Amino acid sequence: MTEASEVTGLEPQGEPQGVYAAALTPLKDDLSPDKAAMARHCRWLAGNGCDGVAVLGTTGEANSLSVDERLAILEALIEAGIPGDKLIPGTGCCALTDTVRLTRQAIELGICAVLVLPPFYYKNVSDEGLFAAYSEVIERVGDRRLRLYFYHFPQISAVPLSIELIERLLKAYPGTVAGIKDSSGDLENMTSLARGFPGFRVFAGTEKLLLPLLKAGGVGCISAGANVLSALIGRLYGLWREKKGDAKTEGMQEEVTAKRLLLERFPMIPAMKQILARHTGKASWANVRPPLVRLAPDEAAELFATLDGAGLTL
Amino acid sequence: MTEASEVTGLEPQGEPQGVYAAALTPLKDDLSPDKAAMARHCRWLAGNGCDGVAVLGTTGEANSLSVDERLAILEALIEAGIPGDKLIPGTGCCALTDTVRLTRQAIELGICAVLVLPPFYYKNVSDEGLFAAYSEVIERVGDRRLRLYFYHFPQISAVPLSIELIERLLKAYPGTVAGIKDSSGDLENMTSLARGFPGFRVFAGTEKLLLPLLKAGGVGCISAGANVLSALIGRLYGLWREKKGDAKTEGMQEEVTAKRLLLERFPMIPAMKQILARHTGKASWANVRPPLVRLAPDEAAELFATLDGAGLTL
Repeated sequence: MTEASEVTGLEPQGEPQGVYAAALTPLKDDLSPDKAAMARHCRWLAGNGCDGVAVLGTTGEANSLSVDERLAILEALIEAGIPGDKLIPGTGCCALTDTVRLTRQAIELGICAVLVLPPFYYKNVSDEGLFAAYSEVIERVGDRRLRLYFYHFPQISAVPLSIELIERLLKAYPGTVAGIKDSSGDLENMTSLARGFPGFRVFAGTEKLLLPLLKAGGVGCISAGANVLSALIGRLYGLWREKKGDAKTEGMQEEVTAKRLLLERFPMIPAMKQILARHTGKASWANVRPPLVRLAPDEAAELFATLDGAGLTL
Repeated sequence: MTEASEVTGLEPQGEPQGVYAAALTPLKDDLSPDKAAMARHCRWLAGNGCDGVAVLGTTGEANSLSVDERLAILEALIEAGIPGDKLIPGTGCCALTDTVRLTRQAIELGICAVLVLPPFYYKNVSDEGLFAAYSEVIERVGDRRLRLYFYHFPQISAVPLSIELIERLLKAYPGTVAGIKDSSGDLENMTSLARGFPGFRVFAGTEKLLLPLLKAGGVGCISAGANVLSALIGRLYGLWREKKGDAKTEGMQEEVTAKRLLLERFPMIPAMKQILARHTGKASWANVRPPLVRLAPDEAAELFATLDGAGLTL
């Protein structure tokens, strides 16, 4: 264990479970990734209710970054002492060769659990094509340490992953195909996966469904909202683990959901970046890459009035 | 003029116009780009009715290739003697830094007209965000030689480009914003652009709309079908240029459309790759990258029966 992980409590704990933040990626004013600020943010999340950090996903604007920029972020986090087994980076790209390169390098860095979007340029592709896409990645990476988590986010990727496809890949690559982040918002889909495939680790893509999914056999959530609500979500997960009684846990889920809904009144990524800019005093935290747009001053003022009115502080 | 261009008739001719093939990208059996076969295909297209070649677009599986693989293809085509001003490569990626790198390198190679998709991962993005995406590319490339063509393909990118956005960018970057490939299939949209913005070069994304768009002020088509129908489409464009009389030209458009519709009975990219495999005797031409899938043997047999029945030969 490194000195850094002792300080932050980021101890390795076996298979991923619990609350993962889908971490924001801070950008400098030239829109290049601010790797030092990113490491600080990951550390802060770990000290504030997160069991781990899912970097370089949708919330992390990963697809707005080149593969080299993404690799440099992963290297910087490891160098900063974040243990590789507390990270779940997104490594799924449109290009097979990019996905293979990112995944291989992640494993070399000691990061074996990765979240893999399907190739998302072509639409209405066949399950056969998606099976080939995932199996080529697994075969080319060719490393038993790989733990592949599907990233199912049909509203954004526009390429849904069917239960039949998942079952087929699970049978072909047991041990490697490890789980899913299901961002569809469809609790029934998540429940079917958790109940249908024992050992397959299902994370909800939103904290709004954390408790219902845990009850149905899921293992946690990987959530954008955790960038600013991690302490609260962490308490909810703790109550569930301690089996503190249903009413109290349900009440905490309601509180989590209410806070998340406040955030959803605004474009989530720019809004959370504004919150981090205020929290850290670092104005560049508000930067986003196109096609996202930072909040206008009046929107930011409305955001802060909303949060302050609800007593939502970091 | 290079020796190669004298041989193939690929003479520079000023601004792009006429018939461009959205070229297929041949892949070796390890799915890496076959650059020699690609150069041969571009040369063959130029000798068979094409005024130029739009490489690395949707039909070229560009988003299934890494940026390095795409750059290596462009370099190989230039080295093989294809004049840069006969090429319109796709350079639009999800990541700003990738789009800038590809575009800059294309210009360095003497390829100044590029076809630029919007960043296509996030959906329902604002015109403000898309304006920022394109203007950041133009500003960062910072080269007066750049001729930017929008690539509007809402069915695949799921990120449409509005006429208002195009107008705003045209006003901000006159001379640089040069035109569009409109693959929406919406003739009214193409006509509005061609009539509304004099000097803005509108290409139809399909040969089925070549004649109607030429009549409405468009400059040509950039089409997938031209990989196998280029000679026919070239004759149609020739008739239009020679003003050979409406009935004959309309008849040729009907023939072009009928042949294209035959191709559309099959998944276009794998089907055309099968046709090229048969035509060249090179079996690897049939390879595609996931998530696309090559035709099954019975599908290929049906394809060839259909083509042979219609007398469609290369």
